[in-house]
Amino acid sequence: MTAKTDTDRTEIRLAGEGGQGMILAGIVLAEAAAIYDNKNAVQTQSYGPEARGGASKAEVIIANGEIDHPEVIAADVLIALSQEACDKYAANVKPDGLLIVDEDQVERLPNRPVIRVPVSKLALDTTGKAITANTVALGVLVGLTGIVSRQAIEKAIMARAPKGTEEMNRKALEAGFTAIERLAH
Amino acid sequence: MTAKTDTDRTEIRLAGEGGQGMILAGIVLAEAAAIYDNKNAVQTQSYGPEARGGASKAEVIIANGEIDHPEVIAADVLIALSQEACDKYAANVKPDGLLIVDEDQVERLPNRPVIRVPVSKLALDTTGKAITANTVALGVLVGLTGIVSRQAIEKAIMARAPKGTEEMNRKALEAGFTAIERLAH
Repeated sequence: MTAKTDTDRTEIRLAGEGGQGMILAGIVLAEAAAIYDNKNAVQTQSYGPEARGGASKAEVIIANGEIDHPEVIAADVLIALSQEACDKYAANVKPDGLLIVDEDQVERLPNRPVIRVPVSKLALDTTGKAITANTVALGVLVGLTGIVSRQAIEKAIMARAPKGTEEMNRKALEAGFTAIERLAH
Repeated sequence: MTAKTDTDRTEIRLAGEGGQGMILAGIVLAEAAAIYDNKNAVQTQSYGPEARGGASKAEVIIANGEIDHPEVIAADVLIALSQEACDKYAANVKPDGLLIVDEDQVERLPNRPVIRVPVSKLALDTTGKAITANTVALGVLVGLTGIVSRQAIEKAIMARAPKGTEEMNRKALEAGFTAIERLAH
């Protein structure tokens, strides 16, 4: 349709249980890309019967050019914070894509490379609040992929953090970054 | 693809400025439909250059059957809380669709039936907080269309309301319902 295509598109799926804040994480990631990093982004949630069971999933597509198709076709990155999320979506990750799981929540792993990070434990240890797992997850995702800049994700998180939770969220993000730096050394 | 089609689909667009909480309103509406009213829902945000200008837009598709196509094709309902939102999206409302605008924010109206409600003013008068305009808007939308039940939208709002804001949000929702009841008499 246009000269600018979305061949540079990155498809990210964030999945977990209700209450882990994956939908908010998806919105924050899309806003980091679009508002602070000057890219285009589309962010989608589909709610079917699994929503009643408490599963929660957000999809984000980020591209420099226009985004023609708003759905994940095959994920470049999946971050799964629950066993159900890993079971359901791991097969849809590209062969050379990244599968990141919460190592304390996901025991049965698929037969492919997996990056295991104790996301929920880091959240609890760092802030005392399980709900900050989504911010830790964003730190892990951005630390590993660089899909948006660290400044952009921090600004986007701060813009969405409820009043009084800014410092807690900053620490949770930092814990995600640090976990990846440790993995790399 | 399946026997169940999405011919019963309703396409809703919520548009305004950043800070009016339209994205959260979209999420809450989708959750009301899917989690509390047992329907299917897809909720999408696209962020392009306009996001940098502060415009904010959420799309929600609700259906009893499966939803094949996650994007709004022609809106059954548009609620526009800013002039820019009305200018940009009014032409995409179906001829027999509903166009709802904030009467204090949108002065130039398109040549078609328009439902004018003082959404921002109701929010300020009821709760003292401009940010509750999104909850008032949900009350207006649900009061007018019945696309989800009143119980479902109330439960979905309560589930997403930050601690301590539940009563304020309940009042804002009620103000939206009441505004529509007044229109109808």
